[in-house]
Amino acid sequence: MKFHIEYPRILPERRPEGHEPGAPRYTLRWRKPVNRIISAYYGIQGSPLSENEQKSFFDRFARFFESNCGPETYETMRCIDEEGYTNAIIVAYWTDQNQYTEWEQCSDFADWWESTERLQESFGYWREIIAIHYDRHETIYSASDYRIGLALCSDSELVPMNTNGYFGAARDRLPISSVDSLPGFMSVIEHPSGRIDTHNRRLFAETPHNMTAIRSGQYWAEADSAQSEDYQLSMQPKLMDGMRYLLENRKETGTLSLRIMTNLDRHGRERDETSVYACFVDMAGMEEWASSHTSHLRIYNHAIEKKRQYGENRSVVTWHEVFILTSGLPFEYINCHPGTGLLPFCTLYERL
Amino acid sequence: MKFHIEYPRILPERRPEGHEPGAPRYTLRWRKPVNRIISAYYGIQGSPLSENEQKSFFDRFARFFESNCGPETYETMRCIDEEGYTNAIIVAYWTDQNQYTEWEQCSDFADWWESTERLQESFGYWREIIAIHYDRHETIYSASDYRIGLALCSDSELVPMNTNGYFGAARDRLPISSVDSLPGFMSVIEHPSGRIDTHNRRLFAETPHNMTAIRSGQYWAEADSAQSEDYQLSMQPKLMDGMRYLLENRKETGTLSLRIMTNLDRHGRERDETSVYACFVDMAGMEEWASSHTSHLRIYNHAIEKKRQYGENRSVVTWHEVFILTSGLPFEYINCHPGTGLLPFCTLYERL
Repeated sequence: MKFHIEYPRILPERRPEGHEPGAPRYTLRWRKPVNRIISAYYGIQGSPLSENEQKSFFDRFARFFESNCGPETYETMRCIDEEGYTNAIIVAYWTDQNQYTEWEQCSDFADWWESTERLQESFGYWREIIAIHYDRHETIYSASDYRIGLALCSDSELVPMNTNGYFGAARDRLPISSVDSLPGFMSVIEHPSGRIDTHNRRLFAETPHNMTAIRSGQYWAEADSAQSEDYQLSMQPKLMDGMRYLLENRKETGTLSLRIMTNLDRHGRERDETSVYACFVDMAGMEEWASSHTSHLRIYNHAIEKKRQYGENRSVVTWHEVFILTSGLPFEYINCHPGTGLLPFCTLYERL
Repeated sequence: MKFHIEYPRILPERRPEGHEPGAPRYTLRWRKPVNRIISAYYGIQGSPLSENEQKSFFDRFARFFESNCGPETYETMRCIDEEGYTNAIIVAYWTDQNQYTEWEQCSDFADWWESTERLQESFGYWREIIAIHYDRHETIYSASDYRIGLALCSDSELVPMNTNGYFGAARDRLPISSVDSLPGFMSVIEHPSGRIDTHNRRLFAETPHNMTAIRSGQYWAEADSAQSEDYQLSMQPKLMDGMRYLLENRKETGTLSLRIMTNLDRHGRERDETSVYACFVDMAGMEEWASSHTSHLRIYNHAIEKKRQYGENRSVVTWHEVFILTSGLPFEYINCHPGTGLLPFCTLYERL
């Protein structure tokens, strides 16, 4: 079985007529039917956050994940956010929402996470649960021999594709884009009453319909020395410029949150690998930036140039996974600073 | 185009081997791709609720619905709930969640519904928004010449089918049932702290993953006199017995809410038509009752007997539509009594 979903197309493809991509790319397919995908981010936030505190958080989740219905794969990362807080982050994946829900309710995680003790710690905690139908996701990988993110789930295959190499290809790869234009339904405007008092509180943020989450990855640990040097000296600064532009132009680009995360090894040490995890109001804001703004075109052109230069021997891996959410309340913030994630922009709720 | 979704089956069908249904039944298919379906219930609750108050509520929504992106179809109904309150109810349908969201945000409805004035009225208001992927719904109609509910949306067709006439057929008709066993994730237990203070409050209830909503309809306005009499004297009492059993055995059957509604004409007068709108923790509770409990078997056998007796001339129409929800927060109660809908059982939230 090579599982994928396609719909009869009623909206035009973005692919220019006759386009054939210059460089091969890969995407995920499955040896089993996948109906819903869960990408769950869990964070601890501190200023400072010591290595021991980070380790204790990761170890705790490693124990939680061992129980029945734990995730199929997970990774650990670290980021400094715009307010200077350190966030240690876990991202876990399931390809079955029943398994995820069973784990969430029945593992030791539930008791620990729901405890009122979490409100009284010196840390903040947050979770951002992306749970979507298969037809609302797409993936792209520059190489077929490196697995990361959703691609670490079992029964998946990286297959060559040609829906790439033009602006709009990410949208064309989303099965739902054949039948749905995926418009956004909010503007990135801070709460008119100013910052919310988030101290010692558990707050839930409403995700707007068609909110777009992307995890975009860069891996240069196995790159040869020339390519690794080029990545660090020339490509990475361009990437950081682009990310800064998005954060400084939230309203124009629809950027709700953006975390530049460094991937960690099992000892909590930084790897030669980063992921940017960002949420946009909709796909169009991200697309507009990607196709027209200098800060993205410089990244894009650098990547194409290096692929041309090295061909088969290109040893820096780039990839991304995109998920389009439906409206809901799956983002939760406990005692976090008021600039965390969706807190400054989205409608907030408290549990009775 | 005859749009429908099917997945490669990895879970066994419920259909007994070689089963062919004794009587024809119909189900909905589409002349356009349908990705998400919205069935939105809006209620006003009063004790008493006068005809004028009911009319004013319906007229208000009729105006709201006229604006851009209003529903494709809607109906009005009335029910007395278990606490003796009268609820005037509108059910509206969309086959495009973008249209629904646009209407919800941009019509005059938003200002009126969100106003704090709603908290201070002598009435309660509630809305229960069912927004699901196509693969989480199924329909059945005993006749192909009567349109009601979702079947009133444009570009739909009632087509003959043979996935009926055995216990488990409703599950087999759900596209997702090929790949998902749709387990439930809660028990019907009242809040341990007792009834919530709902007075002058706007409360949001969390729908558990795989919660199952059914609207089951009975239409005898065009039945000949013998069949109409049989329906009212013999069938309807059996139906009411069954509904009473479900309400009195919530925990065993997973019944979260159940409203026996009388359909109204455009003047607000009762039609010879009813709908039962019920929410169950999961599909299995409803199936177990349907396949094994006397109170359902009496309904089922009566329906089969009458179909045998009248054949092509059977003039009482029965039908249902089933929607399996994902977890979320789309059920809202404003100043309603604490026994309304999901309020007694589900996790509740307030907006900041």
